[in-house]
Amino acid sequence: MTEKVVINEVGPRDGLQNQARVLSPEQRLQLIEALIAAGLPAIEVGSFVSPRAVPAMADTDRVIAGLPRNGVYYSALVPNRKGYELARASGIKAIGSVIATSNTFNEKNIRMSSAQALAVVLDLIADSKRDGIDALVYLSTAWECPYEGRIEARAVIDLAAQVFAAGATEVVIADTIGAADPAATAALMKMLVDEFGAARLTCHFHDTRGMALANVYAALECGIAKFDASIGGLGGCPFAPGASGNVITEDLVFMFESMGVKTGIDFQKLMAARDLLRKAIPEEPIYGHTPEAGLPKGFRAAA
Amino acid sequence: MTEKVVINEVGPRDGLQNQARVLSPEQRLQLIEALIAAGLPAIEVGSFVSPRAVPAMADTDRVIAGLPRNGVYYSALVPNRKGYELARASGIKAIGSVIATSNTFNEKNIRMSSAQALAVVLDLIADSKRDGIDALVYLSTAWECPYEGRIEARAVIDLAAQVFAAGATEVVIADTIGAADPAATAALMKMLVDEFGAARLTCHFHDTRGMALANVYAALECGIAKFDASIGGLGGCPFAPGASGNVITEDLVFMFESMGVKTGIDFQKLMAARDLLRKAIPEEPIYGHTPEAGLPKGFRAAA
Repeated sequence: MTEKVVINEVGPRDGLQNQARVLSPEQRLQLIEALIAAGLPAIEVGSFVSPRAVPAMADTDRVIAGLPRNGVYYSALVPNRKGYELARASGIKAIGSVIATSNTFNEKNIRMSSAQALAVVLDLIADSKRDGIDALVYLSTAWECPYEGRIEARAVIDLAAQVFAAGATEVVIADTIGAADPAATAALMKMLVDEFGAARLTCHFHDTRGMALANVYAALECGIAKFDASIGGLGGCPFAPGASGNVITEDLVFMFESMGVKTGIDFQKLMAARDLLRKAIPEEPIYGHTPEAGLPKGFRAAA
Repeated sequence: MTEKVVINEVGPRDGLQNQARVLSPEQRLQLIEALIAAGLPAIEVGSFVSPRAVPAMADTDRVIAGLPRNGVYYSALVPNRKGYELARASGIKAIGSVIATSNTFNEKNIRMSSAQALAVVLDLIADSKRDGIDALVYLSTAWECPYEGRIEARAVIDLAAQVFAAGATEVVIADTIGAADPAATAALMKMLVDEFGAARLTCHFHDTRGMALANVYAALECGIAKFDASIGGLGGCPFAPGASGNVITEDLVFMFESMGVKTGIDFQKLMAARDLLRKAIPEEPIYGHTPEAGLPKGFRAAA
């Protein structure tokens, strides 16, 4: 079993972007600082999208300007060259871009064919390489598409091969609508690990059908050691029918630490970040099984 | 991967016993009939405990008298000889009895030492054998005790060996407070399967910390093919601090069928049983991720 994993906290982007309430850059920074204090080693801090389309992500450059410099791996999502230029100007050292494995999803979500979407992503990778910025590429709907149903593993592998060949630092395999099961997770991740190695692969699961932790376990068994998660299980995708929140950071940390897999995250300090989030968006549900149930008696983090 | 599993529905006992509202025997039978119509192959239909202590389980003999004869594996929980005599008189063909792996839990839960509790269980097994009734034995707090913390695997194996030696038909390994993680599940179940074979072992998980489906997957990988589950995730244990509901039947069925593991259960008819339950206890939360999210597009049950 893997001894140590990296949890990439996506709440400040993937989580907050879906909330009705728009937090100020200062509030977003406070949340990020609480997450850093809890020991999160990687954080997606915002996105450079149109502030009219996604008001919650406006002023991401101000958030980035305020980030403490401390070895935490910060990234920001970028949809196109305009966003990329803003990201570069902000000084962020890693950008994420997204392409769906499903053609229909690309057409419905971003009004591009898969070929067009791939061209955009490949350009962003080339720009990032030139500028010394890490390029993370999200392959969304990697198992299931809300329009097309099951996705062939071959399509995911081909897409990953193309973005790796172009110089992507990391590929994130995303179950956008939370329909992957652990057997499907194991099957796809095993093929991807065989092809590309585990070190450059991350998994991104949603808990839509309650299988997120099961899928994490299945991916962990394949050697995957980096996982996206969202504090309070915030998230979902406004463009993906039936999608719900990301795997819950608090529950993920507990599961890993209980298994003896180190996350470097302090559960109690994570609860402080959770409290901050709850106060910032009091009208939204904040999920989490272990926060509700409490840690088992005598629980110790992995050492 | 296992091709076929048996889900033992415990909602009519483990679920309903914890509800504030007491259903009539007729209502309990209606629920059981809806579960049978959905294809549940095994159902825990009630318990023979004091109706003063657990009013919701009063008249279990009337429920049993009304059960259709159809090959479904019915069982009822029995705490002691008095309960056993009532169970025998009811005509039920399988009884369940419980002993905690943790001594402190036995003392707090049933005011017996583990030795006393074991003596009761061994007597019940002997009585059952004599009468041609199956004896299922639940080993509760098999991974974690709310008072003692982590339980040594050796203690579970020793206890299982004693009840199997006495003639138990089946041993149910129960994570009473929902604190097992998938690595701990895999470790214990692998040892138990090596020792006793998978065919006589069942797993019983609670979703207290969100890991129930992950634990089911880990146990399935060890060869376990029978699982307790509760419709709507009803359940918990009034005597176990921090316990919450059982693994949700609906989500479990979806996970298995999605993986190509046959349950024999019709998801749409299971939704009908869920609706019936919701109407019977409208004030109680009915859980379920897949019922809320819906089945993915083009989903087909395992064939």
